[in-house]
Amino acid sequence: MEGNSRLLIMGGAAGPALLGRFVELAGAGDARIVVIATASEDPAATERSYVERFESLGAGTVRGLRLAHRADANTPEAGAVLRGATGVFFTGGDQERIITALGGTAVDTLLHALVGEGRVVLAGTSAGAAMMSATMITGGDRPGVTADSVRTGPGLEFLPCVLIDQHFAERGRLNRLLSAVARYPHELGVGIDEDTAILTGGDSFEVLGSGAVTVVDAGAATDIRVPPSGPIVLAGARIHVLPAGCTFHLTGRRPVTGPSPERERAA
Amino acid sequence: MEGNSRLLIMGGAAGPALLGRFVELAGAGDARIVVIATASEDPAATERSYVERFESLGAGTVRGLRLAHRADANTPEAGAVLRGATGVFFTGGDQERIITALGGTAVDTLLHALVGEGRVVLAGTSAGAAMMSATMITGGDRPGVTADSVRTGPGLEFLPCVLIDQHFAERGRLNRLLSAVARYPHELGVGIDEDTAILTGGDSFEVLGSGAVTVVDAGAATDIRVPPSGPIVLAGARIHVLPAGCTFHLTGRRPVTGPSPERERAA
Repeated sequence: MEGNSRLLIMGGAAGPALLGRFVELAGAGDARIVVIATASEDPAATERSYVERFESLGAGTVRGLRLAHRADANTPEAGAVLRGATGVFFTGGDQERIITALGGTAVDTLLHALVGEGRVVLAGTSAGAAMMSATMITGGDRPGVTADSVRTGPGLEFLPCVLIDQHFAERGRLNRLLSAVARYPHELGVGIDEDTAILTGGDSFEVLGSGAVTVVDAGAATDIRVPPSGPIVLAGARIHVLPAGCTFHLTGRRPVTGPSPERERAA
Repeated sequence: MEGNSRLLIMGGAAGPALLGRFVELAGAGDARIVVIATASEDPAATERSYVERFESLGAGTVRGLRLAHRADANTPEAGAVLRGATGVFFTGGDQERIITALGGTAVDTLLHALVGEGRVVLAGTSAGAAMMSATMITGGDRPGVTADSVRTGPGLEFLPCVLIDQHFAERGRLNRLLSAVARYPHELGVGIDEDTAILTGGDSFEVLGSGAVTVVDAGAATDIRVPPSGPIVLAGARIHVLPAGCTFHLTGRRPVTGPSPERERAA
C-alpha cells in the first residue's frame, strides 16, 4: 500500500456515522464524490440510494459513474470523472462483477494512481470492501475449517497482503477466514462486521463503527496442513478482536493501541 | 484433572466410530456401560436409543440410570450402579438440567472419584460435553464478540481450566467462545465440532472424529477489555484448529503433534 492511501473499507450495512465519515474525509462541503455501483444487481437504484445519502450527509457534489462493461471502464469520460473526484465509493453486490468489469482497465490503473497519490479517498462496502484485497474471498459458507469452505480469486489489490471478509460476525464467517489464511498465510485475514470499517493511513488501520474487526494472523502459525478435502490443521495462529478506537499495524502484524479509558467509561 | 482420568468429550451428533471408541475404551465385550440421560427432555427415549446403539457396538452390558431429581442422585442404589460400571455416558439435551440434578450430590462426588482413579471412562456428548468444564457455557448465540453474546455458569468440573463448546463449526460458535475466554482468560476455550471428540489422557488430549477441535487461548493475549455491553477488545490471543490425530498439551497450552503424514496421504 502506498503511504498516502486513504482506504475506508466497510463490512456492509454502514450507518450514517460511517458514511458521514467518508463524506468528511472526501472534503465535506467541498467533497466531489463518485459512486460506482458495478457490483449491484440493480446499479441504477443502488447508485441513486447512495447519491441521496451522501447528499443528505452534506457532500458538495455526488454523482454516479456507471461501469457495466469493460468498454465503459476504458473511456476518456470515465477517467475525467475520476480525476475530478475527491472520494470514490464502491457499493455492495457481487464482488466478481467489479473484477470482471474493471480489472486491468484504464479506470483500474487510474484509481490506483489517484489513491496512491492521496488525491482520492477510496471507500467500499461489502463487495466494495472485498475487492480491496489482493486475494479476494468470492464465496463459501460451509461450516468447518476446510480447504473447500472458502473460494478465492484475485481482487483489485488496493490493500496488499490483506484478505478481507465482510458481514463478519453477522454471518459467522470466522471459519471461512481461518480456512483462507491457512491456505494463504502470507495474507493477514481481516473480518469486518456490519456498520464497521477500517480506515487505512500509513502502515496501519484504525477501526471505526459499532462492531468489531477480527484479525487472523496465520503468519505466527507453527504448523499448517491443508489437505484437498477434510479439516485443516492450523496450529498457533494469532487472533485479535478489535472494536472502534483500536489501531493495527499492518507490517508489524500487531495491535498498536486500544480504545482510550475515556471511551470505556462512557460505554 | 487427575492423571488417570479418561474423558471422551464429544461435540454432538457422534457417529458409530466415536461411540464405538467409547465402548472399546470401556472394555468392549467386558464393558459395563451406564447411560445417564438427565439432560434430555425425553430421558426414557434418549436412554433407550443409546442403550441400543452401545449394545449393537458390542458392549458387554448397557443400562440406563435415571437421575431426574437430586434425591435420585443421593440414593445408595445409584452409587452401586456406578461402582459396577466401566464406562459412563452423558447424553445431550440441556446442560443446566445435569447441574441442577447432580451438582454436589453423592453421584457427583462418586463419579469424580471413580474417574480420577481411572476405574471409569467418562463420556458425554453435546450437553454431556458442556458439563465437563469448570465454567460451562449455558447459552448465547448472538453474533459478535461481546460480553452478552455468551452466558456461563458452573459445570461439574471433570476437566478443569477448560471451557468447552459443542456443535462448534455447525452452529458458528467461535464468536461466543472468543467472548467466553475474553471474560475468563484463565480457561482454555475448546470448541468441538459434531461427530468429533477429545480424549484426555495425562495432561493432554487427542482429537478424534470427522471434524476439528478449535482451541482458543486468551492466556497469550496482550490486551483484553470487556465492557458491560458492546464489542470486546481481545488482542494477541492464540488459535489452533486441530483435526483428528492432533494432540494438545493442556498445561503447556500448545499442540504437541499433528496427524501423521500417512494419514494425510490417505486423505
